[in-house]
Order: sequence, then structure tokens, then C-alpha cells
Amino acid sequence: MAAEIAEQPAVWRRFLADGAEAGLAAAATAIRARHPRTVVLVARGTSDHAALYAKYLVEIELQLPAGLGSPSTMTAYGARPDLRDVLMIGVSQSGGSPDLVRCLEIGRAGGALTVAVTNNAGSPLATAAHHHVDVLAGPERAVAATKSYTAQLLALHELLMAVRDGAPAPAALPDLGAGLIEQDAAIAALAVRYRFAQRLLTTGRGYSYATAREAALKLMETAYVSAQAFSGADLLHGPLALVDPQVPVLAVVAEGIGGDAMQATLARLREQDADVCVIGRPAAVEAAAAGVALPGGLPERLSPILEILPLQQLALHVAVGRGGDPDAPRGLRKITETL
Amino acid sequence: MAAEIAEQPAVWRRFLADGAEAGLAAAATAIRARHPRTVVLVARGTSDHAALYAKYLVEIELQLPAGLGSPSTMTAYGARPDLRDVLMIGVSQSGGSPDLVRCLEIGRAGGALTVAVTNNAGSPLATAAHHHVDVLAGPERAVAATKSYTAQLLALHELLMAVRDGAPAPAALPDLGAGLIEQDAAIAALAVRYRFAQRLLTTGRGYSYATAREAALKLMETAYVSAQAFSGADLLHGPLALVDPQVPVLAVVAEGIGGDAMQATLARLREQDADVCVIGRPAAVEAAAAGVALPGGLPERLSPILEILPLQQLALHVAVGRGGDPDAPRGLRKITETL
Repeated sequence: MAAEIAEQPAVWRRFLADGAEAGLAAAATAIRARHPRTVVLVARGTSDHAALYAKYLVEIELQLPAGLGSPSTMTAYGARPDLRDVLMIGVSQSGGSPDLVRCLEIGRAGGALTVAVTNNAGSPLATAAHHHVDVLAGPERAVAATKSYTAQLLALHELLMAVRDGAPAPAALPDLGAGLIEQDAAIAALAVRYRFAQRLLTTGRGYSYATAREAALKLMETAYVSAQAFSGADLLHGPLALVDPQVPVLAVVAEGIGGDAMQATLARLREQDADVCVIGRPAAVEAAAAGVALPGGLPERLSPILEILPLQQLALHVAVGRGGDPDAPRGLRKITETL
Repeated sequence: MAAEIAEQPAVWRRFLADGAEAGLAAAATAIRARHPRTVVLVARGTSDHAALYAKYLVEIELQLPAGLGSPSTMTAYGARPDLRDVLMIGVSQSGGSPDLVRCLEIGRAGGALTVAVTNNAGSPLATAAHHHVDVLAGPERAVAATKSYTAQLLALHELLMAVRDGAPAPAALPDLGAGLIEQDAAIAALAVRYRFAQRLLTTGRGYSYATAREAALKLMETAYVSAQAFSGADLLHGPLALVDPQVPVLAVVAEGIGGDAMQATLARLREQDADVCVIGRPAAVEAAAAGVALPGGLPERLSPILEILPLQQLALHVAVGRGGDPDAPRGLRKITETL
């Protein structure tokens, strides 16, 4: 897991150089030609968080309604919706989950334009879809997905921005990531703070909500912390009652609109005397109990690619500190088969 | 909270008798006339779980793609999507959340047919939408929503089934609920099992996934348990690592397809020596460490209305057992205002 976390900037450099060969241009051209009126994203686990990120990109940048599909309605309940106006995007590291393959087959039969975003061009999901975008992350060995997650975020960003002739990710992105990853010793020191935490909340709004969800999953699957993610708005509808000084909160507060919208949530957390660690804006980090400052200067829509890096490192260090082996979490397999 | 839990069968009886007056017929007629191609649901907190239930109903019974909207993309990021083929349904107990009101206003301006499902016909959300369905639950005083949740489920069921001329809920539903609620002493005894649990998982698939999410929220907001909900499929993608004999699991296993699809999840939980409490099929309850059997004979799509009852009672008894006041959870307000 540590090696794959460190490898991420190199993965992004490769994608930014070879993305066109990854099938991206053909997929973007097909999407533009089809003029979809809605986008349905299907995914599970970590890939579902990349899909959540893409949902925000579609709604904000393409101005189309987008939803996360519930695969079981098609695979188990037999729904066969008319999807002629729909772009269906399946996201999966392995491209091997049978329920997602089935979703894309049913989507295609129902008239949807289908695109698979995976880390394996020869996978069943890539074969089932009209188009495939390879995230080019290289083989991922750790059960907890890291490099494939940010590769999915970058591939989805480049794909969706290509659809609208928008700006691709700047070439500086990999260097910004490499600079963050070098702060590993500081994250190891921060991990001591959560050494004995059994429960934890993560929160973020807008694009960063995906980061909060993925950070919670990393902490669950490697360090066995009960980490719960809430959008900064939903946190105030009930889960805020959970918060006391014994339940630390990791808050993602990026530069931009999502981070602005988090200010009300941060104020309520202060009222509850919450122990808050901020990942994001330097000023918000300074005002919090702990935190990791992120570099500025990127468009907000790209911030999730950087935000997750220190949180992956945090999960790793908390797991190791507790005597766990983050490369082999108990009970998990690399490819999860559900139908 | 106890009084409002007990009141639910009476609330359903009232809705089944007076639903037509609640605006349901007019809304159903308008939806049929419009032939929407997609449904977007917007809600927060408990109402978001009712919206999740409605998403399954739309996908399975109306055979339309449906998604849970991310309000911030419209309210904070300023997205103004073309929604001329879209039915937008806003669900809110109070009808007072400013972000949902704004969503429905933007949806209506963008061409969507808009329907508000609330417990207050004079609310801003009811006024903002083309049509309003009143769930007729009467004033809800406890911060933790109970009767308004099942009233929303029933109203959404009756509305969406009316759209497709499907079967309404049977008149026997309130009596089945009343019979379940009478088992309060058995639930109080079961609550002792979770007296000292700090962490807990809930799970279900299909229609029952909404129940798992709502049960987790009730336990969080009244008993301050870190309760995490996962679909039975997503549980196997990472969170299963959390499960050990110290982290109890509440599994909703209804009669029907969703419960059938839970069998693989139950098998993996057994491999992990999980402590599982089943709410649902008598045979699955017998095979588990603990459980609550639900009456059979209802269509699966109505089972969430019954499933949540013992889980509301469980949250109440765990909260009281820990010395809490479930009617006044710390840090929460009845109407949550976010934008």
C-alpha cells in the first residue's frame, strides 16, 4: 500500500501523457455525438467514490442531471428501463465485478451509450461497454485501492472535460502530489493522535464529499476504525449528535465553493467542542486542532485528487500503529463478486 | 419519541383513508401526463432515506432511471441543468429546508415537473412545487423523525403506484404494524444486548437498504452509537474488514428478492464470526444470534414500512438504557437549515 501511494504522481504523469491512447478521445467524441440527457454511474466500493466525484463533475460542468445507479434494481429485481437518452458509465478497478458487467450489458441493451472506466483493458467490464477508458494505473496489489482511485478521478476528469472542450488537468498536478506525499513523516506524527480512536467522522461538501467518503473507507478497511462520512450538510441532520470530544472529525475544506459551504458546518462543530482535523485551506488548518495544508492554485474540481493523498497515508500509519497489515485486511478479497 | 412510534399505524390509517385529499391524485395525474424520462429525488437526513426507498420504487416499478440529487451542485455551484424530461421530487418532514426549497425552485425553472412530499401543506417546499402530497402525519415533536418517516414511505408508495395504476397498500398494513409495535417489551430485552456497543453495522439490499440507513441514523442520533449502514453488496467491498465479534451487525432480510440477495452477505458474515441480529424472515432470525421476525404476506416493496418499527424501538431503548433523552438529542434542531 505504501509503495502504491507513493507511485501516484507517476501514474498521473503517464495518464496525462498517454491518455489519448487510453481510449479517452474516442469515448469523448461518442458522448458528444450522442447528446445524452442524463448520466447514470454504476460502481462499488472505492470506485463508487470516484463515481460520486464524476456525478458532481457532470452536474456542474456538463449541466446534466446525474445519478448513482442501484445495480440491484437491474440485476436482482429485473428492471429493464428505457435508457435511450442516457450515458451509463461503469467504474471499476478490476473491471471484474459481475453485477457491474451485468448493469452495463442491460444498459446497452436498453439503449444507453456505455463507457467503462477500469484499470484493465481486457476486463469483462471493458468488453461489455461501447467504449473503454483505461486509467493506466498498472497492477494494484494492495487490497485497499489507492493509486487506482486517483487514476479513476483523473481519467473521469479528463474524459468529462474533453466532452465539453474544457480545460484538462494542468501538467503541474503530479509535482503537487509528489510534494504532498513527501510529507509522510508529518502524517505519521499526526496518526499518533488517532492511535486509540475507535470511532471517527469524516466530512466535506461538493467535490470534496467524495474525498470524505473514500477517506472513511480507507480507515475502515485498513485500520478497522468505525469511520463515517457525511456531507457537511447531512452531518447537521442527525449525525451531529454523535460528535463529542471523543469522536474526532476529519474535515476536508478545499479552496473554492465546497470549502466555503463547509464554514457553517465547522462553526457547528466548534459549538459541539469537536476535535477537528482539517485537510485543505491553510487558514482553516491553523484554526483547527490538527491538519494538513494543501497547495493552492488548482481549479477546485481537481482538489480531490490531492486531498486523498494525506488521508491514504493517515489510514496506513494508523493501521500500522495498531499492529495491522494494511496490505492484507482481514476478510477482504481484491475482486468482490456480488450479483 | 415513544408516543410517535406508537402512533404510526393510526397515521397510516388516516393516509389510506384520506390520501386522495392529500393531493396525491392530482400529482399522479400530472406525472402520468408528463411522461418523465428520469426522476431526481432531493432530500436530507431521514427524508433522504425515504427518497432512497422511492428511488428503488421508481426504478423497479416505473422502469425509469432515478437518482438522488446533490443539492449543492445547484444551490452552491450554480448548476442550471435542462430538466424538461425530469420529475423532481423533494421530500422533507418540515418542508422548511432552504436548500431543498431552492432545488425545487431551480428544478421548476429548468423545466422539471416538481412534487413536494412534506408533513406541512403550508410549508415553503409545498409552495415551491407544482404539486404537494401531504403525508398527514400530524405534528412531530421528537427531533428523531419516526412517524413522518413511515408516512413518507407510504405516501411515496401510494403516489408512485398510482402513477402506474399499480396496487395500493392493502388495508391490513396498519394492523400488521400495530401488532409489531406491541412487541415493545421484547425489543427492550433485545436492547440490553447493545447496551455497551460503541460501534455497529446495519445492512440490507434492495428496498431494505433504506431501512438499514434509517436504522443507523436513529441509533446515531438518539443513542450516539457509531452505526454505519452498507448495502449488502457494498459491505463486501471493504467495510467487511471492520466486522469482528465486537462489532454487531443488524441485517434486514425481508421476504423477496432483496432478502434473497442478502444470503451471500450473511454467509460472509458467518465466516467472519460476526454477531448478527436479523430483522425479517423467521428462518433467518432463527439462524442468527438474535432477531425480530416480521409478519409475511405483504408485497416486498411495502416491507420497509414495517421493518423500521422494531429498529426505531431498539434505538429508543438503547438510548434510554444509556441514560440519554431520545426526545432531545444533543446538538440537533428539528429543522436543519443548510444552503
